[in-house]
Amino acid sequence: MAEQIDRPVYPTALGASSRERITLLGRDLADDVMGSVGFGELAFWLATQRRPTTGETRVFEAVLAALADHGFTPTAIATRLTLLSAPDSIQGALAAGLLGGGSRFLGVTEDCGRFLHDVLTAQDGVLPTDDAGWDALALATVAEQRAQRRFVPGLGHHVHKDGDPRTPRLYAIAAEEDLVGPHLELFAAIGRVHPQALGKTLPLNGAGVCGAALADLGLPLELLRGFALLARTAGLIGQLAEELRHPVANEIFLSVDLNNRSVPPDPYHPPSLATESAGTHG
Amino acid sequence: MAEQIDRPVYPTALGASSRERITLLGRDLADDVMGSVGFGELAFWLATQRRPTTGETRVFEAVLAALADHGFTPTAIATRLTLLSAPDSIQGALAAGLLGGGSRFLGVTEDCGRFLHDVLTAQDGVLPTDDAGWDALALATVAEQRAQRRFVPGLGHHVHKDGDPRTPRLYAIAAEEDLVGPHLELFAAIGRVHPQALGKTLPLNGAGVCGAALADLGLPLELLRGFALLARTAGLIGQLAEELRHPVANEIFLSVDLNNRSVPPDPYHPPSLATESAGTHG
Amino acid sequence: MAEQIDRPVYPTALGASSRERITLLGRDLADDVMGSVGFGELAFWLATQRRPTTGETRVFEAVLAALADHGFTPTAIATRLTLLSAPDSIQGALAAGLLGGGSRFLGVTEDCGRFLHDVLTAQDGVLPTDDAGWDALALATVAEQRAQRRFVPGLGHHVHKDGDPRTPRLYAIAAEEDLVGPHLELFAAIGRVHPQALGKTLPLNGAGVCGAALADLGLPLELLRGFALLARTAGLIGQLAEELRHPVANEIFLSVDLNNRSVPPDPYHPPSLATESAGTHG
Amino acid sequence: MAEQIDRPVYPTALGASSRERITLLGRDLADDVMGSVGFGELAFWLATQRRPTTGETRVFEAVLAALADHGFTPTAIATRLTLLSAPDSIQGALAAGLLGGGSRFLGVTEDCGRFLHDVLTAQDGVLPTDDAGWDALALATVAEQRAQRRFVPGLGHHVHKDGDPRTPRLYAIAAEEDLVGPHLELFAAIGRVHPQALGKTLPLNGAGVCGAALADLGLPLELLRGFALLARTAGLIGQLAEELRHPVANEIFLSVDLNNRSVPPDPYHPPSLATESAGTHG
Repeated sequence: MAEQIDRPVYPTALGASSRERITLLGRDLADDVMGSVGFGELAFWLATQRRPTTGETRVFEAVLAALADHGFTPTAIATRLTLLSAPDSIQGALAAGLLGGGSRFLGVTEDCGRFLHDVLTAQDGVLPTDDAGWDALALATVAEQRAQRRFVPGLGHHVHKDGDPRTPRLYAIAAEEDLVGPHLELFAAIGRVHPQALGKTLPLNGAGVCGAALADLGLPLELLRGFALLARTAGLIGQLAEELRHPVANEIFLSVDLNNRSVPPDPYHPPSLATESAGTHG
Repeated sequence: MAEQIDRPVYPTALGASSRERITLLGRDLADDVMGSVGFGELAFWLATQRRPTTGETRVFEAVLAALADHGFTPTAIATRLTLLSAPDSIQGALAAGLLGGGSRFLGVTEDCGRFLHDVLTAQDGVLPTDDAGWDALALATVAEQRAQRRFVPGLGHHVHKDGDPRTPRLYAIAAEEDLVGPHLELFAAIGRVHPQALGKTLPLNGAGVCGAALADLGLPLELLRGFALLARTAGLIGQLAEELRHPVANEIFLSVDLNNRSVPPDPYHPPSLATESAGTHG
Repeated sequence: MAEQIDRPVYPTALGASSRERITLLGRDLADDVMGSVGFGELAFWLATQRRPTTGETRVFEAVLAALADHGFTPTAIATRLTLLSAPDSIQGALAAGLLGGGSRFLGVTEDCGRFLHDVLTAQDGVLPTDDAGWDALALATVAEQRAQRRFVPGLGHHVHKDGDPRTPRLYAIAAEEDLVGPHLELFAAIGRVHPQALGKTLPLNGAGVCGAALADLGLPLELLRGFALLARTAGLIGQLAEELRHPVANEIFLSVDLNNRSVPPDPYHPPSLATESAGTHG
Repeated sequence: MAEQIDRPVYPTALGASSRERITLLGRDLADDVMGSVGFGELAFWLATQRRPTTGETRVFEAVLAALADHGFTPTAIATRLTLLSAPDSIQGALAAGLLGGGSRFLGVTEDCGRFLHDVLTAQDGVLPTDDAGWDALALATVAEQRAQRRFVPGLGHHVHKDGDPRTPRLYAIAAEEDLVGPHLELFAAIGRVHPQALGKTLPLNGAGVCGAALADLGLPLELLRGFALLARTAGLIGQLAEELRHPVANEIFLSVDLNNRSVPPDPYHPPSLATESAGTHG
């Protein structure tokens, strides 16, 4: 006779279905969600299990638009090359592109949101109430980073050296929706005061301001990168659609392969741990 | 002296940027897209390089809502287990879930859209103009599939045996927006007449009707699976968000690992190609 | 009180462990596997649950060597670009490269093995016993493919037009180990007779002969692509190692991004289904 | 007239091919590699661009064997579920499993190798020359970790509480091949002395000793996780092979899905940043 155990239980507030009905987040999917909830709104709702306001949705979708596509990024190229190689698997091409969403190219959004949040949390509940207060906090923050020889996430851009056009636009939208919270306040103050601490003027970049805006929307910091990836999924579908109609991946591949130069192996030896006099060998 | 070659050129209508400006699809990203284009609308636009109408956007977003999350699917479980194993890499957990978006679980949308399209294309430009005409085409179509011992994609559901609630809702939305085209017409007719050909009544499932609706929106058939994956990305972010706060992955893992039963190896031998009398061996 | 259910049971012959002992494939991992089973041998064993002979291992490892790395393939470039973008996630860079292992670039091995197998299976157990017999079967096979306007998998190579050097070498190794079975026999015969049917001479390519050899080793056809992926994993680690020391990914990225040309959107419209005279619209 | 640019050059010592010849690592692939280089040996060679000795290969392959498969790990389950969902894409199922190779389940190998290396590097070239010396260094190391409230990577195992059977076996193999270097020495000493610092006896786990052995082989620390992933690729192919013949994934999926419990949404609210008295709100 088979051994008996307690039935396991896996709770979820996400999708569930019975013979007659499908629910999502406690709502009837067909009647209450389909046709009345936009896709950005739904993504926000799924991530937080609370329905965003119209203003929150607008700021959120502005962030997604800002991050959706930046042309021929490494991730876009990886997606196109993967489609070239495995045209039968759209999901693989998409996944390959998302896997580039790590610390360097998509990470600024998350890094900036977290950085601002850490500074704010360290204020022990007493936040500035005017620009002068924010400026003072920002100046101390930038100076501390400089002293520690660390960059301020979200500061600087290799192309938009005079200002990232997304930044003022997102501030304007957040202001229109009355959703400028402490992360955006602090980031704006960093934009104002960092020349005093760094001796040069850098732009607040779009990825950084998106991180600040997402944090002010009350989204979980652990998932800020996830929202950048969601935005990028739409962008990668655009890349795939364009590649299917106006392909460039094979030409990119050939531009590398035909220009390879075969060189002799360069044997790797790890750095030596022991001085010779120590008489040991690794 | 280095050899000279023609500068390569990689055209794209997607993201581009100069020192002052970022464009996307020929528009100014900051001024014309951020704050005024919703995320579903943007995804449609990126995939087709044409801006959808309000009605098209509504149908498209209804499809995305229908496909976003179905609870503890294999893909949702894979995403949660990957987060458990590699919590440092949100992109990896997301990609792992999307990789399940293949022929079986997310494929119905694509298969149904393509199937309907193939039937319609074979009509050589003369499509039915009334229900009777659609019914006749649908009956011939279902009978042909049955004769070939093939399933009709989108017909049947293992849970919603009396009808998938998403199906009438999506038809209603498409009708409200005047977007019931030939794919939805044919699929509806299949729903009406299949009992005559199959001898039993099956529901038109939600994944299938989504495929029909996406095809009627004029979206590229090669990318229908891509839209299901886009919808699922939002759902998987919901799964990750819930897993971070109310984890179940470790319990799922243990429910398998603790109930493993070690069995002896079962050596694999391929089916024999040669009869013994042939005197050969492989 | 919690409901009781039967304890589930998940059988496996792979890894299992108790407090004192780890077993793999019914053997003691520490005592019977570590130090005495090579990695290629182990991979074969894991896939078939039977230990290969020394000769089988040699042929198998020759196949893996043949498929491990082909320089700057699309998959190698995708892996390097993903490392550039997400240097914190080696697993993501590796996975991105493997995702290119689909129908086009790594698929020949699988396609060729399956194709040969299908032909052999259709002989109903009576296989040729001499070269003349194989040639006759090969000629009929190639002629049939031509009649159906299909390619013969494994035939032809865009670089090695006069012969792929891996092909004779793998035949020699298989012959030394007495492991030339019906798949390799048929493939060799195709190499001999195809000019009669096609009117031109094409090389038997390395990926194809690897598929034939793997099939003759009795490995599951469903997994032939898996072995190509295993080989490629070693190659991709080589690519990552070289990229870490002598990076080219950023230069590749810039060679694309700096040569992008912004073009106007090209709105997608699906092919029309209805003739104008039909008076319908989609 | 098209603009002229310098031809780009992408150097590589890995695969290259001309019309007649394929080279890999400066060798003729067909003549010098196929049939004479084992797969583990080749993987080592590709990663370091130097050919390992017979002893190095044996230790390396013992490590790969130790890490290849641990039964129903989260990564194995994710691979099986992905195959269930997308059976058409072996590469996707494999990639999904590898994506679990992150910090938690496969990370110990890398973490332990790096940790030992950092301690050794900090000795400024003067390493212990006898057990007493190693014990002193190990004791200081463990005490320092404890003082910083950090774990010692590689110490402890949730199942093999009295000792991981892989550990003594790998030490024996390394000793047989005269390849016990400073990383293994230090790790062994940690095994001897940690009870003095921690007040309890923990086993040196297999993943940790593998990291120490790989570091002593002179392999790049940045890629230690890569070797664990290579080993796991073979294991995952074993999982896929078993799943194809003796499937459990659908049963695992149902054991979760049928035991889901729909619960009300739990709206996420980020921790408050401001005290009420501060009079601000985000």
